Amino acid sequence: VSYPGPICLIGGTGFLGSALRRHLRNFDSELVVAGRAREAPFEKGERYVAASDLLQPASNTCEHFSAIIDFAYATVPSTSFEDPIADVSANLGPLIGHLQLAQRVQAGRFVFISSGGTVYGDVGAAPIPESTPNAPISPYGITKLACEHYVRLFHSLHGVPAVIVRPSNIYGPGQLPFRGQGLVATAFGAVLRNKPLTVYGDGSQVRDFLYVEDFCTGLLAVLEKGTPGEIYNLGSGVGISVAYTLAAIDKIVQRDGRSLDIDWREPRPFDVKSNILDTAKLSGASGWAPATSLEEGLSATWEWIKSQ
Amino acid sequence: VSYPGPICLIGGTGFLGSALRRHLRNFDSELVVAGRAREAPFEKGERYVAASDLLQPASNTCEHFSAIIDFAYATVPSTSFEDPIADVSANLGPLIGHLQLAQRVQAGRFVFISSGGTVYGDVGAAPIPESTPNAPISPYGITKLACEHYVRLFHSLHGVPAVIVRPSNIYGPGQLPFRGQGLVATAFGAVLRNKPLTVYGDGSQVRDFLYVEDFCTGLLAVLEKGTPGEIYNLGSGVGISVAYTLAAIDKIVQRDGRSLDIDWREPRPFDVKSNILDTAKLSGASGWAPATSLEEGLSATWEWIKSQ
Repeated sequence: VSYPGPICLIGGTGFLGSALRRHLRNFDSELVVAGRAREAPFEKGERYVAASDLLQPASNTCEHFSAIIDFAYATVPSTSFEDPIADVSANLGPLIGHLQLAQRVQAGRFVFISSGGTVYGDVGAAPIPESTPNAPISPYGITKLACEHYVRLFHSLHGVPAVIVRPSNIYGPGQLPFRGQGLVATAFGAVLRNKPLTVYGDGSQVRDFLYVEDFCTGLLAVLEKGTPGEIYNLGSGVGISVAYTLAAIDKIVQRDGRSLDIDWREPRPFDVKSNILDTAKLSGASGWAPATSLEEGLSATWEWIKSQ
Repeated sequence: VSYPGPICLIGGTGFLGSALRRHLRNFDSELVVAGRAREAPFEKGERYVAASDLLQPASNTCEHFSAIIDFAYATVPSTSFEDPIADVSANLGPLIGHLQLAQRVQAGRFVFISSGGTVYGDVGAAPIPESTPNAPISPYGITKLACEHYVRLFHSLHGVPAVIVRPSNIYGPGQLPFRGQGLVATAFGAVLRNKPLTVYGDGSQVRDFLYVEDFCTGLLAVLEKGTPGEIYNLGSGVGISVAYTLAAIDKIVQRDGRSLDIDWREPRPFDVKSNILDTAKLSGASGWAPATSLEEGLSATWEWIKSQ
């Protein structure tokens, strides 16, 4: 695959951005990685820029990007409740700035990484198609949804060829275990530290877990086959209960003579009962399908976490 | 009608807030009017407070409000494009603060004044029910919709008994003509100054005009009969073209020997073709219906504007 100009990953130093960079390094395009830090380590074929420099209108960082992929987000769902105003100011302004950048440099594509787990809200047990009315129940979901509307606006009013991706719960190697985000990474981290894992609810909550490598192939499918102005769910399409997932994790760590202890707590009002993404739209547009079973993905994650 | 404690109008000094205050002064409740200014003139039975004082957690402005009605908004649709980031920071933080106030003082009701004209987007020519998926095409519509989601969140998570009102195009006495908002007021203002009225599009755009007194009775119907957590359209339910409205205005001013000149311009991409609100939900819940014809309302508006 070849692109006529560099590809820019904003927020490209986190879990998802770093994973995607490994795939993009096989492309014949320079990678421009933007993050909050002034400087950061980078790989061959990559160039690092501070995101704040990238946003200066007079910046000569790049006259053209084949694509801008925006992973930047300053908050996570569980902490967005503590300060919803900070969640607004930390995320909406920067996203609008990234869209203005895409407009200014006439980026060939703009891909916004939204949140399939939070923008829908508590809409029922069936797989959720993209057309479902949105009723987010966390400040994080509200700002992600508002971001989507700005992306749509810049597409329809200013012609920015932007697509929106709504990933489900992504897990896998590279997700740090002690950040309070990601059930799988947090669970393996608890095992590693011999500490109980705090779980809210009775385990019956259903989630859609997608392995990070499948996320990357799906994102590349959106980049290459997605239609500007459209929204694409990106998940496994399969609902798995939290209890089943934790039992699968326990089984894997028992091979190493370890076990997962769980500290069950009362359910939190902002955790939806079910969240399964209907991925027929992306599959139909691109032929994409996930390739990794939950057991394979969990085993690979455990091997990575042990190696750290 | 009697309420057990004061009623608070935030942003209560503008067109809609001032009109509602005339109705609420007939109630046996103190009115607390909050605005951006440090001080403002007020009427008998009213108390003015600066909105910034109201939001101090330690404020002893009031230990309880029967209702908080939130009219405060720092932007208008047409100007929100110039600085979408300012539209975010000027509106979302304050709204979240007002919701935190409602939670803290256990307000009996919180009424958020949203925007029926902008939160839906370009969804077609039929009257729009509240359940229609939202696709706003202005930064103003995006922030109003995000505000609605915060209102829903504070209702579902924190028990704030909040309702959302989506008014259509409100017009009538009290709407200042030279603010760049409100077709009717701006048109009468142009006549008064003998200047042409700038109109974007060919006049075929359809709008839902509601007379300000009908808006007030509708808002009181929502306050008294609305169900917390719900959204209510508040419009005439009737679509009128811009051209018809301008012809009706011209007919009225011709009685005084004046005329309306129009400077037609290219349509703007962010003006929807049609916006008619389906008001069956509020009518069904309360029996409310508008009482003023467009001709009556326009005549009363012209008399008021001449008297200024």
